[in-house]
Amino acid sequence: MSKNEGITLGDFAKELGAELSGNTEKIVVGLNTLRAASNDEVSFLSKDLYVKDLKKTKACAVIISPDKADLAPCDTILAEDPYLLYAKATHIFMNLKKNKRKSGISNLSDIHDSAKISPTAYIGPFCKIGKDVEIGEEVILGSGVVINNSTKIGKKTVIYANSTIYDSVSIGSNCIIHSGTVIGSDGLGFVRDGENWVKIEHLGKVHIGDTVEIGANCSIDRGSVGDTIIENQVKLDNQVHVAHNVNIGRATVIAANTAIAGSTVIGKNCTVSGGCGIIDNLKITDSVHITALSLVTKSITKPGTYTSGTTLMDHGLWKKNAVAFKRLKDIIKK
Amino acid sequence: MSKNEGITLGDFAKELGAELSGNTEKIVVGLNTLRAASNDEVSFLSKDLYVKDLKKTKACAVIISPDKADLAPCDTILAEDPYLLYAKATHIFMNLKKNKRKSGISNLSDIHDSAKISPTAYIGPFCKIGKDVEIGEEVILGSGVVINNSTKIGKKTVIYANSTIYDSVSIGSNCIIHSGTVIGSDGLGFVRDGENWVKIEHLGKVHIGDTVEIGANCSIDRGSVGDTIIENQVKLDNQVHVAHNVNIGRATVIAANTAIAGSTVIGKNCTVSGGCGIIDNLKITDSVHITALSLVTKSITKPGTYTSGTTLMDHGLWKKNAVAFKRLKDIIKK
Amino acid sequence: MSKNEGITLGDFAKELGAELSGNTEKIVVGLNTLRAASNDEVSFLSKDLYVKDLKKTKACAVIISPDKADLAPCDTILAEDPYLLYAKATHIFMNLKKNKRKSGISNLSDIHDSAKISPTAYIGPFCKIGKDVEIGEEVILGSGVVINNSTKIGKKTVIYANSTIYDSVSIGSNCIIHSGTVIGSDGLGFVRDGENWVKIEHLGKVHIGDTVEIGANCSIDRGSVGDTIIENQVKLDNQVHVAHNVNIGRATVIAANTAIAGSTVIGKNCTVSGGCGIIDNLKITDSVHITALSLVTKSITKPGTYTSGTTLMDHGLWKKNAVAFKRLKDIIKK
Repeated sequence: MSKNEGITLGDFAKELGAELSGNTEKIVVGLNTLRAASNDEVSFLSKDLYVKDLKKTKACAVIISPDKADLAPCDTILAEDPYLLYAKATHIFMNLKKNKRKSGISNLSDIHDSAKISPTAYIGPFCKIGKDVEIGEEVILGSGVVINNSTKIGKKTVIYANSTIYDSVSIGSNCIIHSGTVIGSDGLGFVRDGENWVKIEHLGKVHIGDTVEIGANCSIDRGSVGDTIIENQVKLDNQVHVAHNVNIGRATVIAANTAIAGSTVIGKNCTVSGGCGIIDNLKITDSVHITALSLVTKSITKPGTYTSGTTLMDHGLWKKNAVAFKRLKDIIKK
Repeated sequence: MSKNEGITLGDFAKELGAELSGNTEKIVVGLNTLRAASNDEVSFLSKDLYVKDLKKTKACAVIISPDKADLAPCDTILAEDPYLLYAKATHIFMNLKKNKRKSGISNLSDIHDSAKISPTAYIGPFCKIGKDVEIGEEVILGSGVVINNSTKIGKKTVIYANSTIYDSVSIGSNCIIHSGTVIGSDGLGFVRDGENWVKIEHLGKVHIGDTVEIGANCSIDRGSVGDTIIENQVKLDNQVHVAHNVNIGRATVIAANTAIAGSTVIGKNCTVSGGCGIIDNLKITDSVHITALSLVTKSITKPGTYTSGTTLMDHGLWKKNAVAFKRLKDIIKK
Repeated sequence: MSKNEGITLGDFAKELGAELSGNTEKIVVGLNTLRAASNDEVSFLSKDLYVKDLKKTKACAVIISPDKADLAPCDTILAEDPYLLYAKATHIFMNLKKNKRKSGISNLSDIHDSAKISPTAYIGPFCKIGKDVEIGEEVILGSGVVINNSTKIGKKTVIYANSTIYDSVSIGSNCIIHSGTVIGSDGLGFVRDGENWVKIEHLGKVHIGDTVEIGANCSIDRGSVGDTIIENQVKLDNQVHVAHNVNIGRATVIAANTAIAGSTVIGKNCTVSGGCGIIDNLKITDSVHITALSLVTKSITKPGTYTSGTTLMDHGLWKKNAVAFKRLKDIIKK
């Protein structure tokens, strides 16, 4: 990681509210893995797997659980959940890295007169802000962000460069939206009329709660009638597709390249791994975990972990088995 | 949905060319589902599944087939295909919502002198329009759209913000292209030369027909030699990848996150569900339906519905079966 | 393909360093397939499969291996590897097509005073270039490209319109990055704290080597601690997701819509087909080939070709087999 100006180990532990056993005056400049840390960096032991790295680490201090503290060859910062404390510690170094908070509206942007923009917001160059848009306190919009008519962005939300938010979308506070993401596009809604398709105009909206993070190049469609809803604390990885009228429950996490089809409702505290597909009009209950590249074609009423597909094999072996699978029912009959 | 200024039920039925049984003077302001509709909204019965919702709906009128009309607790608008009439009805409310059609070129755009732009077109701020570009009547380009040299956009086509169209692409009339979509990028074409890859420069183009809709964040590559072709009435969802020299036939629909590899030809009136892969150099005949997350590795000569993969299971059960699958051929031999 | 001003067959063969048997004065204007070529175009025979097309080709000359040259009905340009020579030939025609190299900084861009930009670079309109950015010789940035603070772009690299490069990214020389691609966004890193997720701030960077090509709408996350690394000669197709701290080895090729999860290391000279998923923290050795839509959940230590999934079937047949698969372990027990 990039080196920073640094902070004393004492101040670092104090900001984290954690007990330091060691040199309070030592200046630390970053966080790193046990293997890669240098002696002006702090590290952490999150899994027993890494105890062997712990013994050889050059870090000047480690975040560690009390029962493992004896194993550390260096200063220790105690934590019941070292990985969580590490996460909190990243914020300290990020704040050191960041420039002073910026505010102001670039005069290279195109802002509609009717837009209400907090004086503490920052709007980068080449942004287009439409009619009746509302932008809250300390919002940051990167270069080239487009916010269409009647959309509202809650306070402290950050939208990175070249994202596009269509009209009548509401985004809560403390959200992070990465570059290239599109929110509020029309869903795939067409009805056959002879040789042609008639478009279903999308009259609905998108509501996104607070403290939602959305990765790069995601696509979130607006509702056809009714709205697409993403609840508080939801975290989407990159390139996730959320179709019209989907509802994603609180604190659910969805990994990259997953696609969720229209009107499906996903519960709270679920995790959907990368590359999954969830078809339309399903209901997935709370605390469901879907493993990578799985396809969900039925509603899930029981919490648990679910999988489809087969394991990876040498291609030659796979071919034989795949041929057998094609005759599986017949073979069993015999 | 957002409430509109409204239209009388009589005018509404008249615009749809449908028979109204009820109060012609009632003002209606929107469309909604049977469950969610309020008494100034119209709803529709598209499936028998929703008859139970019909009985309790608060909608002031429903679009319904003649044989079900007796079940409605409210005014009725008769339709042989209620879902199709609903689709048409969305256009009425969308037109009420929309501001007056805008035209004109933002003086914050960068337009090459040689570009031919219809005086009825609208070009938003921060657009870049290259040499010899042609933009037809009533075209709308959102903010930050890039149209490179020699590309042609047909009349009434809408390209949403932050889309990028490379050079020498032709797009027909009445198309809709959502934000973040890229058309005309180079395909994955490389030839090995010892330790390195030699790039195949892409000398071909992209041709897109009329009334094509392309979702957000799609990527459509130009041909290497010869062109990539998307026929009239094709509808692509979000994040669809179309490789170099692919040809997609008339009125075929492709759902989100599907990838189609190079030079594959897909027939007319096909549907490809989300997350599918179709490998290169295949020929898929007309009226083929591929279910979600399926992989197509051979040409398909017979219309029908096709699937690969396994169903979703509890992970523990899946693991046992997946292990057995790995030995399937051997087990059968025994 | 589009016709060009043309080049004599003699000069063409000379530029390729290949032996021409035929009319050195003939003007050729493009490359095309054996079937589609007209008599002012050159074609090539890359596979025996196309010998039947060769016999009927109208091309004025073909690139062909010496042992097949007798079969050509036209002039010949001899090559041990005709497909490789074809790739090299595309560069000749691309150079004919291209306008003169452009340089200069659009006065419609927003460039930080501290940025160091080569006088031979070209920066299009509506670009945002941050603090301490370095842009090398003959770099080309399309319209709306964003390059954030402290990022470095090596010489002759081309970044197409509407791409976004976050801060502290390094990109080597001779790279090509297509539109809509995002490099340096945060990965999916969160730690549970009761009901909520605590974000792991991403303190790492992204390093991209030389002669790397990245397709449209890709998303490459920065490291959390430590960096995401893409080695020289890597080629990524469209919509590829590369998570935080991934390392992709030299000359590896990854096809569209594939997702690679966090901290996975992929060796040299691998090929990963489209729609694959590779889970986190794996190690894939050199020269591994993964077929389309496969899921990799374990490290791979042996070069070879690997596959998961099943083949495509008629949906009715698939359903029977899929039901049987669900009971596979039980059936075998009996």
